[in-house]
Amino acid sequence: MTFLDMLRAAGRQNGSMLCVGLDPEPTRFPSRLKGDANKIYDFCAHIVDATADLAIAFKPQIAYFAAHRAEGQLERLMEHMRRVAPQVPIILDAKRGDIGSTAEQYAREAFERYGADAVTLSPFMGFDSVQPYLKFEGKGAFLLCRTSNPGGDDLQNQRLSSVPGEPLLYEHVARLAQGPWNLNGQLGLVVGATYPAEIERVRALAPTLPLLIPGVGAQGGDAVATVKAGWREDAPIIVNSSRAILYASGGDDFAEAARHEALRTRDLLQQAARA
Amino acid sequence: MTFLDMLRAAGRQNGSMLCVGLDPEPTRFPSRLKGDANKIYDFCAHIVDATADLAIAFKPQIAYFAAHRAEGQLERLMEHMRRVAPQVPIILDAKRGDIGSTAEQYAREAFERYGADAVTLSPFMGFDSVQPYLKFEGKGAFLLCRTSNPGGDDLQNQRLSSVPGEPLLYEHVARLAQGPWNLNGQLGLVVGATYPAEIERVRALAPTLPLLIPGVGAQGGDAVATVKAGWREDAPIIVNSSRAILYASGGDDFAEAARHEALRTRDLLQQAARA
Repeated sequence: MTFLDMLRAAGRQNGSMLCVGLDPEPTRFPSRLKGDANKIYDFCAHIVDATADLAIAFKPQIAYFAAHRAEGQLERLMEHMRRVAPQVPIILDAKRGDIGSTAEQYAREAFERYGADAVTLSPFMGFDSVQPYLKFEGKGAFLLCRTSNPGGDDLQNQRLSSVPGEPLLYEHVARLAQGPWNLNGQLGLVVGATYPAEIERVRALAPTLPLLIPGVGAQGGDAVATVKAGWREDAPIIVNSSRAILYASGGDDFAEAARHEALRTRDLLQQAARA
Repeated sequence: MTFLDMLRAAGRQNGSMLCVGLDPEPTRFPSRLKGDANKIYDFCAHIVDATADLAIAFKPQIAYFAAHRAEGQLERLMEHMRRVAPQVPIILDAKRGDIGSTAEQYAREAFERYGADAVTLSPFMGFDSVQPYLKFEGKGAFLLCRTSNPGGDDLQNQRLSSVPGEPLLYEHVARLAQGPWNLNGQLGLVVGATYPAEIERVRALAPTLPLLIPGVGAQGGDAVATVKAGWREDAPIIVNSSRAILYASGGDDFAEAARHEALRTRDLLQQAARA
């Protein structure tokens, strides 16, 4: 079963386009776990248990584990997710970008060591920094395309006069990912939720690719505009929410509160698709 | 002592602009260590011991450790390098690229957990993906600028009509790193050695930045052209060689052979600077 098959099946089964982002910050953990980097696994496992029937995907962000020497906890978390939610694909958010033999090592880290179903990548070093990941049959790779941070403009929004049609850099990446780079249908794109017009533009250039959309907060407005811009019947979007879910409550009811927030966001997204 | 101070001091003390890249691949280890991922530390420590008086910097590539669950071995290696070669700065080659709070986690990983003196980064997400690293006083950050892999052209060599002067993307990155992004003099650039004309161009746009130059192999020609293009009396270059040194011999004399190759390359580079 390929990543894309899993994604579609999870989307149907859980009636969801919500991705639960796992960015564990011990300083923000609820009372009894607060500040304890040895409880990263426990905290995340509770969130996973509470949202396993609501998510189209889980997205652990590896930096939050690496900063705390918690690679072992990430390994255990990956196993836990596969056990309690075998139908939900796991996107390892790592934004790797390197070439040849080094990229192969990163691919082995993501797909073999951690058993991720997909990974996020930077396209800055070009196709041969992406290709090593595509050799892992059925695995997915999301390329950074248009990010919604303030500095996202610095490079991504520059216009390329050396490419036919003079696209912006992010438009060029979208075309490459939809076309020549997508050898076996494994690619997707990361597009920030801040500018729905840009999601719409990426969707026009990449009509069939799955779009991973971070940056949807607690506000409903974003979510609805995001779905309208990016969602198509046959082209999935994966709308990520991390902190709004993880830290919905600072008390002992944090898992229940996370479920409540995930449910609310999931339903909001589904309604937007139907509207 | 800042990264740049360390770099200058090590360059003087070891009479060197050679960076020893640590990309350990167990399948390529010499006979008695071959294939054993538990010997990554041992192998690298031998290389470090054999080249500590010849290098301007060491550059461990984190992917080679992460793929083998060898973060603990990398920690030990960092300690070993600081002990046997306290004067030689360590560049953690990680090519991270993420924003805000996630970039902070990666910075903590590099500078606090591993104690690196500098790190490599991707500029694709813009200034706020670089800034969190600059908050670590005295630490260095090398931005990918022009890489010499075949796909390096795909984005880096595109011409930007939306930027004054219509630079290529890599030229734009060089200017940003020399100018507005370089708040406290912590930035450097990664420039591939394949095209000396491009190193020359980067040097013209970034006259004072340290340049990290990978891709110099066993061939002397490259090395000489690289130095002529990039080296200036007051602007260091750091010319990396990994495999030619690490795997100079497949026998028990591997450390001795590594030293011989490092010495040869160091001297070749020094001669090119004097020519």
